[in-house]
Amino acid sequence: MQDKNRTTQRGPAGEAGTRGGVAISETEDLIASDKVEGTPVYNRTGEHLGSIYNVMLDKRAGKVRYAVMSFGGFLGIGERYHPLPWDALTYEPGQGGYVVDVTREQLEGAPTYARGETPWSDPLYGQSVYGYYGLPFPRM
Amino acid sequence: MQDKNRTTQRGPAGEAGTRGGVAISETEDLIASDKVEGTPVYNRTGEHLGSIYNVMLDKRAGKVRYAVMSFGGFLGIGERYHPLPWDALTYEPGQGGYVVDVTREQLEGAPTYARGETPWSDPLYGQSVYGYYGLPFPRM
Repeated sequence: MQDKNRTTQRGPAGEAGTRGGVAISETEDLIASDKVEGTPVYNRTGEHLGSIYNVMLDKRAGKVRYAVMSFGGFLGIGERYHPLPWDALTYEPGQGGYVVDVTREQLEGAPTYARGETPWSDPLYGQSVYGYYGLPFPRM
Repeated sequence: MQDKNRTTQRGPAGEAGTRGGVAISETEDLIASDKVEGTPVYNRTGEHLGSIYNVMLDKRAGKVRYAVMSFGGFLGIGERYHPLPWDALTYEPGQGGYVVDVTREQLEGAPTYARGETPWSDPLYGQSVYGYYGLPFPRM
């Protein structure tokens, strides 16, 4: 992510209220997209899995569909992108990050893509993501 | 936005398919949050109004509520943030940006906030935004 200067960004709980002089935008109900991006992701045992790279939005329905987690290294093939159903993420203030109920082993078998790959053009890709995590694919 | 190296980012139509080596994620239905951010915004007469700073997401409902447009200069008081109802934005491929049906004069009277201000903590703020643009406030 050398094109995004987000390495110093911390999760919502770690913020003092501003970042780079701009108010951090979060309330009980709302969160800013650029605040989600860069937030770390852990599994239930507290293991760090990666961090949110971006969020996939359904333009027409106005819905948040996926949080794409970036993960570099442990597979030995550079950064990979793991789309996670938005509903699979739970923000844990104590950890300052999102927690997903998935093990590293599950993650290794999960749908991912590499830089330069465009899996979203396959209309069935999203269904495979939801299916892998055992969640119903949202129709709208 | 000195903490965001997005000055070279272009709108969806201007992309060749990658940015910084990472696949641009957009399909007919989906768009990536970091692709929306930085996209220019125009009014109906083609006048450049600003660019998308971030997107406000409803965490619980999983809905996209607002696109926050940043605008610096013409009011003479530095960068301002204009929340726009997500449904008020229409992407125009020919212009490579979003078009909103609002004049500069309307924009000057619209709800805005400055750096360091946190208007979202007021539960009525979102209603005032939708009200100003003549759109019904989404309950869920």
